Amino acid sequence: MRITMAHGSGGHATSELISSLFAKAFSNPILSRMEDSAVVEGSGRIAVTTDSFVVTPLTFAGGDIGRLSVCGTVNDLLMSGAVPKYLTCGFILEEGADIGELESIVHSMAQTAKEAGVQIVAGDTKVVEGNGGLYINTAGVGFVPEGICISSSSCQEGDAVLVSGTLGDHHAAILSARMGIENTISSDCAPLGEMVSKMQQAGIELHALRDVTRGGLATVLGEFARASHCCVELEEQAIPVSDQVRGFCGILGLDPLYMGNEGKLVAVLPQEQAEQALELIRSSNYGEHAAIIGKISHQEADAVLLHTPIGGTRVLGELYGEGLPRIC
Amino acid sequence: MRITMAHGSGGHATSELISSLFAKAFSNPILSRMEDSAVVEGSGRIAVTTDSFVVTPLTFAGGDIGRLSVCGTVNDLLMSGAVPKYLTCGFILEEGADIGELESIVHSMAQTAKEAGVQIVAGDTKVVEGNGGLYINTAGVGFVPEGICISSSSCQEGDAVLVSGTLGDHHAAILSARMGIENTISSDCAPLGEMVSKMQQAGIELHALRDVTRGGLATVLGEFARASHCCVELEEQAIPVSDQVRGFCGILGLDPLYMGNEGKLVAVLPQEQAEQALELIRSSNYGEHAAIIGKISHQEADAVLLHTPIGGTRVLGELYGEGLPRIC
Repeated sequence: MRITMAHGSGGHATSELISSLFAKAFSNPILSRMEDSAVVEGSGRIAVTTDSFVVTPLTFAGGDIGRLSVCGTVNDLLMSGAVPKYLTCGFILEEGADIGELESIVHSMAQTAKEAGVQIVAGDTKVVEGNGGLYINTAGVGFVPEGICISSSSCQEGDAVLVSGTLGDHHAAILSARMGIENTISSDCAPLGEMVSKMQQAGIELHALRDVTRGGLATVLGEFARASHCCVELEEQAIPVSDQVRGFCGILGLDPLYMGNEGKLVAVLPQEQAEQALELIRSSNYGEHAAIIGKISHQEADAVLLHTPIGGTRVLGELYGEGLPRIC
Repeated sequence: MRITMAHGSGGHATSELISSLFAKAFSNPILSRMEDSAVVEGSGRIAVTTDSFVVTPLTFAGGDIGRLSVCGTVNDLLMSGAVPKYLTCGFILEEGADIGELESIVHSMAQTAKEAGVQIVAGDTKVVEGNGGLYINTAGVGFVPEGICISSSSCQEGDAVLVSGTLGDHHAAILSARMGIENTISSDCAPLGEMVSKMQQAGIELHALRDVTRGGLATVLGEFARASHCCVELEEQAIPVSDQVRGFCGILGLDPLYMGNEGKLVAVLPQEQAEQALELIRSSNYGEHAAIIGKISHQEADAVLLHTPIGGTRVLGELYGEGLPRIC
C-alpha cells in the first residue's frame, strides 16, 4: 500500500489514515479527542521548541526518522532544564511513500515517546508529489521547574566542560548507509532525560547545556563562547571518539568535532561538581562514555581552543559550508 | 540569491540566514535568546496544536504560505477556546529557493503574527534537494481560560449552526492561480481572534467551534454529527457563497460545501444566543458575511442533511478522494 494525494485531502482517506495508524500508535486520552488543538494541563513556566527532520535514508543503523524526531525535540526541551511533556507531530508525506515503512516509523516514534515520558497530543498530515520520501516536524512543550536557569550565556571562568559520550556516531552511521559502506557503526540517537534529571536531582548547578547535533561540538561550543564572552579550552585527548568512528574519519578525512550526533550533550558546570556530574552521567542510559573534556577560561575572547596531545593549540571555528546534508 | 544545501548545515551559513532574516523579522526578547528551546510564561491549562503548510503557489491572491501558516495554527488554537500566545516555525527549504521570495514570506508571517497577537518564539531550518519550493510547519501554544469547554462532541438538539462568511474563497483562489485563470477571487486567509473573543466576552455559550479548512464545511459538520451523535440540518439558501465563487464553481463543477477556506469558522451554540452571536461576528474583522445556516436535531443519526430551496433534502457525506492537492 502506498500513499496517494487523497491521503492529504482532509477528507475520508485522511481520516482513515489517521484513525488506522497515527491515533492507534500514539493512543492517549488527549489525542483521542481528535480536536484541532489538544487542551492539556499547563505549568507556570514552559519551554517550547520545534525541529523538522529530513534525514535520508529513513531507516539506518541505530534508528530511524521516527525515533530521531522524538529524540531531537525531547533533547531540545531537556537542554533548557525543562521536563518534556507534550509533542506535536506534522507529517509531510511524498506520494508513493510505502505505508508499511510509515507504520514502522510511527511505531518507532510511539516507542521512543514512551521511553522519553512524553505524550504525542496533536498531529497533522500533508501529502506532496515526490518520490516516496517523508518529512516529520515535531514541536515540544515542557515544564520548567522553579529556579532553573540554564543558558549558553551563563558559562563562567573555571567551569568544567563535559560531554556525555563518543562523538560522530550519528553522522558516521548516516554517511555509511548512504555510501553503502558496511561497518558496525550505529547512530547514537537517544533521549537524554535520565542523565539530565539525575544531575538536577543531585543539585548539579548546570550553567550551559546543549545537545551536540548539526555542526558538531565545535559549533555548539563556539556559540557558548560567543554568548558567554569566554574561552572554551578543550583537551583533544580527552574527547571520546569510538575506534570505529575514528577509523572511519581517518579514511574519509572527517573531523569528529564537526560531526552531528543525536544522543550526546555537552554540559558546562562548576569545576567542583565535575566529578560528581561525570559519575551521574556515566551511570545513566546512553552516558557510559562521558568525559570531562575541558574548561572555561579567559585565554582568548569568544573562542574555542583545542590543545593537542603534542602541545599545540588550534582555534576551532564554527562549521563552514555543507556538513552532511540531511543528517537529521 | 538562492538557498543552497549549506544553509541547512547547522553551521555558519545556517546561522547567517537565521540572524539576517528570521531573527530580524520575528524579533522578540524570547527568540533573541537563541537557545534550543524558548522558556516562556505558562498557564494552568494550555492548548497545543500543529499544522504543516505545503501550498502551491507560494504566493496567491489574498495571501501567501507565510500568512497561511500563522492563520492556520492561530485559528486551530482559537477553536479550542484558547487565547493564542506562542508559535514555533519549522522551515523546510528546497535547494534553489529564492531568498527574496523567502524574505517576503517571512515578513508576511511576522505581520500576521502581530495582527493575531502571537509571538514566534522558536524555529528550525532544514534544506533538502528540490526545485526551489518550501514547506512551513507551525506549532502553537495558547492559554485556555477557566470554564471554557468547547468540543465537537458538545452539539445539542436545538442549537443553531453559524458560519462566519462566504465559503470556497481560498480553494477557488488557489485553483485560479494554478490554472492561470484571471478573476477577482481572493483567498480568505485570516486570523479569527476578534470574532471568537467578542463571543466569549459576551458570554456566548460556544458548544462546538471549528475552522472550515481542508474537506470543507460538509466534512467539518460530518465530524460534529458523528462526535455528538446528532443530525446537522442545513438550509442551502442560507449558506453564504460569493457571486464570483458561485460562478467559478458552476463552470468547473465544484461544490463550495467541500472546498477549503482559511479564514472561516463554523460555530454551534444555543438557539437563543444565535442572533446576538451573528451580530458579534458580523461586527468583527473578516465576519461581515456571517450567517445562521442551520440547526442541530435528531432527524437522522450522525448525519448532515442539506435542505434545498425547492424542498428536497440531500445527505452530505464527508469529502471522498483528493479535494484540491496542496491547498494549504
